Amino acid sequence: MMKGFAMLSIGKTGWIEKDVPACGPLDAICKPIALAPCTSDIHTVWSGAIGERHNMILGHEAVGEVVEVGNLVKDFKVGDKVLVSAITPDWSSLEAQEGYAMHSGGMLSGWKFSNFKDGVFGEYFHVNDADGNLAHLPDGMDLGAACMISDMVPTGFHGVELADIQFGDNVAVIGIGPVGLMAVAAAAIRGASNIYAVGSRPVCVSLAKEFGATDVINYKEGDIVEQILDKTHGRGVDRIVIAGGDNDTFDQAIRMLKPGGKIGNVNYLGEGDYVKIPRTPWGCGMGHKLITGGLMPGGRLRSEKLARLVETHRIHPEKLITHTFHGLENVEPALMLMKEKPRDLVKPLVIID
Amino acid sequence: MMKGFAMLSIGKTGWIEKDVPACGPLDAICKPIALAPCTSDIHTVWSGAIGERHNMILGHEAVGEVVEVGNLVKDFKVGDKVLVSAITPDWSSLEAQEGYAMHSGGMLSGWKFSNFKDGVFGEYFHVNDADGNLAHLPDGMDLGAACMISDMVPTGFHGVELADIQFGDNVAVIGIGPVGLMAVAAAAIRGASNIYAVGSRPVCVSLAKEFGATDVINYKEGDIVEQILDKTHGRGVDRIVIAGGDNDTFDQAIRMLKPGGKIGNVNYLGEGDYVKIPRTPWGCGMGHKLITGGLMPGGRLRSEKLARLVETHRIHPEKLITHTFHGLENVEPALMLMKEKPRDLVKPLVIID
Amino acid sequence: MMKGFAMLSIGKTGWIEKDVPACGPLDAICKPIALAPCTSDIHTVWSGAIGERHNMILGHEAVGEVVEVGNLVKDFKVGDKVLVSAITPDWSSLEAQEGYAMHSGGMLSGWKFSNFKDGVFGEYFHVNDADGNLAHLPDGMDLGAACMISDMVPTGFHGVELADIQFGDNVAVIGIGPVGLMAVAAAAIRGASNIYAVGSRPVCVSLAKEFGATDVINYKEGDIVEQILDKTHGRGVDRIVIAGGDNDTFDQAIRMLKPGGKIGNVNYLGEGDYVKIPRTPWGCGMGHKLITGGLMPGGRLRSEKLARLVETHRIHPEKLITHTFHGLENVEPALMLMKEKPRDLVKPLVIID
Amino acid sequence: MMKGFAMLSIGKTGWIEKDVPACGPLDAICKPIALAPCTSDIHTVWSGAIGERHNMILGHEAVGEVVEVGNLVKDFKVGDKVLVSAITPDWSSLEAQEGYAMHSGGMLSGWKFSNFKDGVFGEYFHVNDADGNLAHLPDGMDLGAACMISDMVPTGFHGVELADIQFGDNVAVIGIGPVGLMAVAAAAIRGASNIYAVGSRPVCVSLAKEFGATDVINYKEGDIVEQILDKTHGRGVDRIVIAGGDNDTFDQAIRMLKPGGKIGNVNYLGEGDYVKIPRTPWGCGMGHKLITGGLMPGGRLRSEKLARLVETHRIHPEKLITHTFHGLENVEPALMLMKEKPRDLVKPLVIID
Repeated sequence: MMKGFAMLSIGKTGWIEKDVPACGPLDAICKPIALAPCTSDIHTVWSGAIGERHNMILGHEAVGEVVEVGNLVKDFKVGDKVLVSAITPDWSSLEAQEGYAMHSGGMLSGWKFSNFKDGVFGEYFHVNDADGNLAHLPDGMDLGAACMISDMVPTGFHGVELADIQFGDNVAVIGIGPVGLMAVAAAAIRGASNIYAVGSRPVCVSLAKEFGATDVINYKEGDIVEQILDKTHGRGVDRIVIAGGDNDTFDQAIRMLKPGGKIGNVNYLGEGDYVKIPRTPWGCGMGHKLITGGLMPGGRLRSEKLARLVETHRIHPEKLITHTFHGLENVEPALMLMKEKPRDLVKPLVIID
Repeated sequence: MMKGFAMLSIGKTGWIEKDVPACGPLDAICKPIALAPCTSDIHTVWSGAIGERHNMILGHEAVGEVVEVGNLVKDFKVGDKVLVSAITPDWSSLEAQEGYAMHSGGMLSGWKFSNFKDGVFGEYFHVNDADGNLAHLPDGMDLGAACMISDMVPTGFHGVELADIQFGDNVAVIGIGPVGLMAVAAAAIRGASNIYAVGSRPVCVSLAKEFGATDVINYKEGDIVEQILDKTHGRGVDRIVIAGGDNDTFDQAIRMLKPGGKIGNVNYLGEGDYVKIPRTPWGCGMGHKLITGGLMPGGRLRSEKLARLVETHRIHPEKLITHTFHGLENVEPALMLMKEKPRDLVKPLVIID
Repeated sequence: MMKGFAMLSIGKTGWIEKDVPACGPLDAICKPIALAPCTSDIHTVWSGAIGERHNMILGHEAVGEVVEVGNLVKDFKVGDKVLVSAITPDWSSLEAQEGYAMHSGGMLSGWKFSNFKDGVFGEYFHVNDADGNLAHLPDGMDLGAACMISDMVPTGFHGVELADIQFGDNVAVIGIGPVGLMAVAAAAIRGASNIYAVGSRPVCVSLAKEFGATDVINYKEGDIVEQILDKTHGRGVDRIVIAGGDNDTFDQAIRMLKPGGKIGNVNYLGEGDYVKIPRTPWGCGMGHKLITGGLMPGGRLRSEKLARLVETHRIHPEKLITHTFHGLENVEPALMLMKEKPRDLVKPLVIID
Repeated sequence: MMKGFAMLSIGKTGWIEKDVPACGPLDAICKPIALAPCTSDIHTVWSGAIGERHNMILGHEAVGEVVEVGNLVKDFKVGDKVLVSAITPDWSSLEAQEGYAMHSGGMLSGWKFSNFKDGVFGEYFHVNDADGNLAHLPDGMDLGAACMISDMVPTGFHGVELADIQFGDNVAVIGIGPVGLMAVAAAAIRGASNIYAVGSRPVCVSLAKEFGATDVINYKEGDIVEQILDKTHGRGVDRIVIAGGDNDTFDQAIRMLKPGGKIGNVNYLGEGDYVKIPRTPWGCGMGHKLITGGLMPGGRLRSEKLARLVETHRIHPEKLITHTFHGLENVEPALMLMKEKPRDLVKPLVIID
C-alpha cells in the first residue's frame, strides 16, 4: 500500500491509501524526487474541468527515481533518476505514427496522469512505455528546472512551435503565468524580435522581461488590442501565443494579428460553448490568419531536447520556482498555494528528501 | 470612351461609359476574349458584401488580348492572348515578399478587379504589373477552361493547399458550387482517398463524382456531421475544404474533423459577426484542429502552373461551363443567370466573338 | 520446424529448415498468403549489397495471416489477414519520435526482414510490434495490389514525398521499374503536370503512360539531360524522383533541375564510394537545389493510407504483377525470374494457396 | 562623372571614373554612408570566381543615402538613409513568385552588385526596385551593424534556415568567418542547444563563444568528424551549417550528421568539378540526410526583419567589425586587409564621413 494526495471528488481533496501500481512489461514504477502542482490540477479539482473523478491521485509534474521496470524496458533500470513527461503517449498508435502522439487513443488521451490514471503525487507512480516516456536526469541539473520539463517548458515551447515563429517576427504572448513565461523564453530563442508580453502581475512581468519580453502590455493601461496595434504602427503582430485568458481571448488575438499571421494556443479552455472568431478582422475567412492549438507533445525525445537547452543555459526554467517545500506531505500546501495564488507566486516546488 | 457593365450602387446594375483606362509603365490594357460572372459579383451588387460602390465595372474572370503595354513590360506585347488572374498583387510589396501577395497593400487588397478598380466586363480593362499578373494563353486551350483559371480553379485549389492534404487522407469538401467542384478535383490529384462531397444540387453532384468524389453527403438525408462520422467509423476526416455555407459551417467542420486535422476555407463569409468554434469538439483548444482560410494566390506563376494541369489533362475545368453566351452585351444575362441560379447551372461563359 | 527459402551466403540460395520464430508479447507470427521477391533480394544475395549473411530467409513483401499474437497485442488476432510492411520500426524509439522511425535503432535499421532477421519467404514469419506494423487486409482487395503495399507502393510514394511535388510541377522520374512506376502514379495524384518518365523497357514504358507519364525519355534517343532541357525550354524540371540508376544519376539530375528544385531519391545505391554533385550546375552550392533520399516509412498507418488509395481506385498497383505463381515452393523460380529479368517482367507474385 | 574602386580585370584593381548611373522609374540612386568589403570581392578579383569582368566597381555591402528616386517609387525619397541588400531581386519574376527571388532571371541572378552591374564602392550606386530592395535605416542604429545587414547577417541566418534547426538540436557550424559567426548567432536564437563551432583563428573563436557556441572544434586538435562524433556519443549532430571550407567539407559533414539530419550550405564553392557525398555514410541514398544550399534571400522585408533583431538586441553584428576606416578612398586598403587577412581581422568597415 502507498499513500497519495488525491481528488476525492469535484471540489474535494485528501490523502488516500492505494495499492502500489503494477508494472507491465514496458512500464516503470517510480518514486518522486521532486513534484510540482499545476494550474490544471486546480481546474481538475475545483472547476471540474475534465469531469468527475473519485479518489484519483493528482499531479503530473515530477522528477523521479525508478524503483521497478518491466522486462521489455531496455534503457532504464532501478535506481535511475528520471525526467517524467506529463504526457505519456502510446508510441505505436496510429496517432503517434501520424505525428500526434498526444492524441493516441483519442483526442487529448496522451494525457494520462491525474486524468485517466493516478498522478504523481503519491509514494509511487506508474509510467507507461518507460523507454518512450522517461528520460535520464542529467547530472547536476537543478531539480526545479528538471521538474519544469514535465509540463511548463514543453507546453510553453509548443505554443511557439504552433505559432511557427520566424526570424525577426513580432510576437504577442498572451498570459504570462509559468506556461506563458516559458513561451516568452521560447520565442526569444526562436528568433522573435519584439515580444509583447500581455500580463500584469509584477512577479510575472519581471520574469517576462528577464526571459526576453521587450514590451509588457497591461490590460489595466487600456485595451490590449489597441496597445499592440499602436506599437506595431497599426499592422498587428506576426505571431501570437495564447497561454492564458479564455474563449474571448481569440477575438482579441485575431484583431491584433497581421494577415498571414498565426496563432498557437496552449491554454486549456475550461468553459463556455464557443470560441468566437470575429468575421471581418478574420478577413471574411480569407485573411490567412491561422488558428491552431494543441496539447504539448510528450515523450522522451522532447524531454531530452529541452533538457539540453537547460544544460546549455539557453533557458532558465528554475527561475519559475518562487516557493520551495520539502517532503511529500507538502504537496498539499503547495497545491493550496496554487489555488490561492498569492502576489509573489509563480510556481511552487516540492522536494521529496 | 468605352462601355462596360457596372454596379451602379448596391442593388443596381447597368451599362455605363467610361474612359479607356490609362496604361502605366508596368501595366497592360486588354480587351476581353471570354468572360465569366462569379458569385462574388452577385454578392458585391446585391448583398453589398464589400460595401458601397458607384459605377464600378464588374467582373474578374477573363481571357483577354493585350492591346497596349507599358514601356517596362518585358514578356507581353500587343496582340498576345492571355490568361488573367482575378487577383493581381503588387509583387514587390512586403506582403508578397512574405508569401502573402494577395494581401499586398492590406488584407485582401490583391483583389483589385471589381473591388478597388473597374473589373473586366468592359470593352477594355487594366492589368497592373503585366509581367507578374498575366500569363500566355496556351495554344488551343478551351476558352472555358482558360477563363476558369482566373478564379474558380485557383480558389478551389488553394482550399486544398490550405487543408494540406496528404496521401491517403479522407477529405470532406463542403459546398460543391464551381469552387467546391474544383476543390474536389484538386483533392483527387493531391492524394486524397475518400472524398466526401457535401452538396445536393444534381448537376453539381454529378460533376463532383466525375471529378473524384467517392461519396456525396446530402444534408437532406440527415445531419452532415453524423453522416461523415458514420462513414469514418466515428473517427472523422483528416482534412476539410470549406467552399460554401456560412459562419456556422465551421461548427460542423470542427465536429467532423480528427485531432490533428486541418480546415482550409475559401468561402467568402459575407455576413454575421462571429465564426464560432465549438470548444469541446475543438479539444478545449488543445486538439490540434487547425483552422485557416485565405484568398487565393494570384499572379502569373499560379496561372501558368494551373494551365499546365489543364494541358496535361489532369483537370477539366471546362466541364464547369453549363451555359455559353456570345457577345459582350451578354455579360448582363449571364450575370442574371448566376443570380437566379437555375437547377442546371454551374457556370456561364461569355465569348466575345 | 519450418522451411524457408534462404540466402545461404553471398551468391548462394537454397531451402533450409529452422525453428518457427518465437512470439514476444508485442509481436505476431504470420503465415504468408502472397509473397513477392524484390530487386533488393537479388542485390542482397548476388551483389552482397548489405554484406554477408548465412542461412537468412529472404523476402520482405507479403500478405499474411496471423497465427499467433503476443499478449500485449490489442488490434490483431489469430486468423486476421494482414498487410505486412517491409519496414517494421520500433515505434517508441527516439528516432520514431523524431519522425524517422525507419532509422530506429540506427540508420536504415527499421528494415529488419531479410536484413537483420529472417524474411517472409518461409512457412511462418515474425512481425515485431504487431499493432504498429501490421494492417488489416481490406475485404476483397486484390492480393497483388495488397502485396505491393509492402514495399513497391510506399517506396515509390516516398520518393514523391521527398521531392515535395506541388500543383503543376514538371517532374522527372528516373527509373521506371516497379518502384519508379509507383512514383509515376504517385506524382500524377500529387499534382504534377508533365511527368517525364526516364526508361526504355517497353513493358515499363507502357505502364508508365498508363500511370500518368506524359513523356517517356529514353537514353537510347540521346542524352537524357538534353532531352529534358529541350522539353522544358531550357529551364529544367521542378522536381525529380530517382528510382533507378546509380551514383552518377545524381549528376544528371542536378543538371536537369531548376534552381529551387528538389530531388528525392529512393534508389538503394549499392556500390561506389561517392555520389558526385556537379559544382557549377549546383549553383556553386548556392542554387537551392535540394537533395535528399530515404528509406520508405514503414508501419501500419502508412499501409492503411495506401490501402485506401487502392480501395478508392486512385492507384492500381496490381498492374505491376506480370507473372503469377502458386505455392510457397515457387518463391524460388519467382526470385530467379527477378534475377533474369525477362523483357516482359515487371513484378512476379506468388500466391500461397 | 563619379569615381569608384573597381576590378579592372582578373587580378587587377584600381580607381576608375564612370558616369553616375541612370535612375529608372522603379529605382533609386544612393551615395554610400558606410561600406564593407566581402571575401567574395576577393574571390571575384583574385580567383576569378565569377569569371572575367572589366572596370566593374566592386562591393555589395553598404548603408546609403538616397539621392534620386524613380517616379514609381513610393516608400523612399531623397535624403532617406537606407539599408541596402546585397541581393536585389526582380520581385515580379516567376522565380520570386515561387519563393526563390534570389534566382530571378536565372540561377544566382538576384546577385547584381559587383556581378552583373557596378557595385557600391563608388560615389554613387544604383538600386533596382527601390521599394522592394531598400529598407529604412532605423534611427540610432550602429553603422557597422547596419552594414552587416547587407550580406553577413542574412547569409549566416539563411544557413540556419536551410538547416531547419529545431528546439534542442545539436548543431555544427563549419567555418567561423563573419558569415559563420552570424550563423552561430542565428543558431543560438533559433533554438539550438549545443553549437559546435568548427574553426581555429583566435579572434573568431572568441566571438563564436560570445555569440553562443558551446564548443569549438579545431582541426588542429584532430579530425573534426571524430571530435564531433565523440562529443555526440557517436550519434552525430542534428543539423549542420556550412559557412566555410570547400567541396570536401560536405564529405565531412555527411559523416558527422545523424540520419534525418539536414545540411544548409551558404559557402560559395569557387572551384573543383564535384561535391562528393560519401555513399555509405549517406545511408546508400536512404539515410534521410538532406543537403541543400542557397544564396541568401535579399530584399526589403529580410532587411527589416533582421534590423529588428538588432534593435531588440537579439544579435550584435557590430561585433564583427574589427577595423574601421574613414573616407571612400579607404575602401582600397580595407579590401587589401581582407585579402591579407591578418590574425586579428574579422571584418573591416569604411565610414564615408
